Amino acid sequence: MTKPPTVEDVARLADVSRQTVSNVLNAPDVVKAATRERVQRAISELGYRPHTAARALRTRRSSTIGIHLDPYAGGVSGVVLDRFVHALTERAGERGMRVLLYAARTPEEELERMRELVERGEIDAIVLTGTFHGDPRAHWLLARDVPFVAFGRPWGEDDVDAPAHLWVDVDGAAGVRAATRHARRSVEDRVAFLGWPSGSGTGDDRERGWREEMHAPGLRLVAEEDVAQARAVVAAALADGEAVDAIVCASDTLAIGARLAATAAGREDLEVIGFDNTPAAEALGLSSVEQLPEQVAEGVLGLLMGETGSSVVARPATAGSAHVLVEPRLVLR
Amino acid sequence: MTKPPTVEDVARLADVSRQTVSNVLNAPDVVKAATRERVQRAISELGYRPHTAARALRTRRSSTIGIHLDPYAGGVSGVVLDRFVHALTERAGERGMRVLLYAARTPEEELERMRELVERGEIDAIVLTGTFHGDPRAHWLLARDVPFVAFGRPWGEDDVDAPAHLWVDVDGAAGVRAATRHARRSVEDRVAFLGWPSGSGTGDDRERGWREEMHAPGLRLVAEEDVAQARAVVAAALADGEAVDAIVCASDTLAIGARLAATAAGREDLEVIGFDNTPAAEALGLSSVEQLPEQVAEGVLGLLMGETGSSVVARPATAGSAHVLVEPRLVLR
Repeated sequence: MTKPPTVEDVARLADVSRQTVSNVLNAPDVVKAATRERVQRAISELGYRPHTAARALRTRRSSTIGIHLDPYAGGVSGVVLDRFVHALTERAGERGMRVLLYAARTPEEELERMRELVERGEIDAIVLTGTFHGDPRAHWLLARDVPFVAFGRPWGEDDVDAPAHLWVDVDGAAGVRAATRHARRSVEDRVAFLGWPSGSGTGDDRERGWREEMHAPGLRLVAEEDVAQARAVVAAALADGEAVDAIVCASDTLAIGARLAATAAGREDLEVIGFDNTPAAEALGLSSVEQLPEQVAEGVLGLLMGETGSSVVARPATAGSAHVLVEPRLVLR
Repeated sequence: MTKPPTVEDVARLADVSRQTVSNVLNAPDVVKAATRERVQRAISELGYRPHTAARALRTRRSSTIGIHLDPYAGGVSGVVLDRFVHALTERAGERGMRVLLYAARTPEEELERMRELVERGEIDAIVLTGTFHGDPRAHWLLARDVPFVAFGRPWGEDDVDAPAHLWVDVDGAAGVRAATRHARRSVEDRVAFLGWPSGSGTGDDRERGWREEMHAPGLRLVAEEDVAQARAVVAAALADGEAVDAIVCASDTLAIGARLAATAAGREDLEVIGFDNTPAAEALGLSSVEQLPEQVAEGVLGLLMGETGSSVVARPATAGSAHVLVEPRLVLR
């Protein structure tokens, strides 16, 4: 049996790149007419059939969802994305679906991996994480009509009524609002916020919850995501005699630093609340806002699958059904 | 186009289970002659071809490694297996391989998932985790001749010279020996060990490192994997006036409890060393033994792949090449 022709064979005969062949197959509008005709001639000549084997297999296997897994970066909060992958795998399995992991060190490499997996028919849908404004991955997936949902909003002008794509996210502002409300019950307006430098979508969203809940602007402290730095910042504020009885933090890492500083300053009474409800916060008995990754996974699969059971369906990005915002839960200790 | 016959069709016609059909195809020796002939007649009659689509696809796609992912259980050390999955995904990707996750809540369910994935040609190899003596998963994979490597030794009579299967593990005894040796430099034989109740392979292995390194038997404390319980056990020992200047622990969870107890008792000088080098230990500035999951992943892929690049090859479980024991590293803080 001779080997069936591949995308590479077509590309060689037509003297174009693999990407151009893929464009002719998936998005012919973006290819110049002359090039398109040359590629189509090569396809006829070779008898190339895109994804034949993959199509044959798909009748026998269940849908497979691809998700990018970053190299392990460590850190107290790194565990949140892993919890989401656990939950996604479990809930996908209940529906007879699989989760396929792929690695990439740069956005360019990630695009290349996605292209390979989609072209070879190895995956039927993708879950994006770590989205940002103008994300080229989302752009590519939309152009190729590949079903996908992002864990993380598009961070566009109007993500709710005119979202760039389907997304699920955690309502960080609501979580911090609940934490601030809890702290204010006893100490009124002496609730400080310890956050990251302005400019990160996630961090600004969480800080907004604190501002919205406070009657008067309170003390705002800033540190990078680092226990030692958070500890130093809070220690300096306490040494300066700042009037503060509670600190709501943008992460558990910051909260651990704040707790260590408060204890060292003899302020065992100072209430500290973190964000992410990590094992580290639990081990130290810190209250924290829990992201509920299980509900995020449920939302992602709901958007991906519609009502068809174990098959992936592309859903239009229309308002109302195009996003799920998960309300986090305050865990008190 | 009519749908091609499936394993189920063959099983129905021959009036046997799917498992029996699979046995006839993969391990005919285990099936009685009469049954085998009945199944083979059904296969001919229906024109069933096992894995045709999967075989066709395999020429176009790279090898896929299946790994079971437990539901997220939380806990300080839960992160270690996730780090391994990150490392495995990254290193498999460098070799053009994929990692496919599957979920299962019971060993029976896990066997069922493995069987489906192997029969449908969705995976080419498996990485087992959480192995135990007489593990039925290993038994099944050996009988079916599916390439697999375990993260975790078989816990048989002689895992090194006559292993039941290929495995990679971390040398827990060596890690605890290094931690004990470090602690003994300053305090001689007043190094205690805080471990789990006897009977867990992993825990007993770690404790052995402490015993081997000590000149005289020292104080051995026992707690379940729980910060509060570890703290209470150490607090009671210190209150009893036990002579101890350092505590080497079987996990970071135990070490956090020990550290909190020591600090509360005014024993800031007491050295505490954990195991797993988790983000929680790092955040608290605790020394800890690091498992090096990246080296475990490297060992697993090396055993699976041999020298053939991106294809999985079954390697015989012969002495010498049949296991990799990773020496962990002591991280001092």
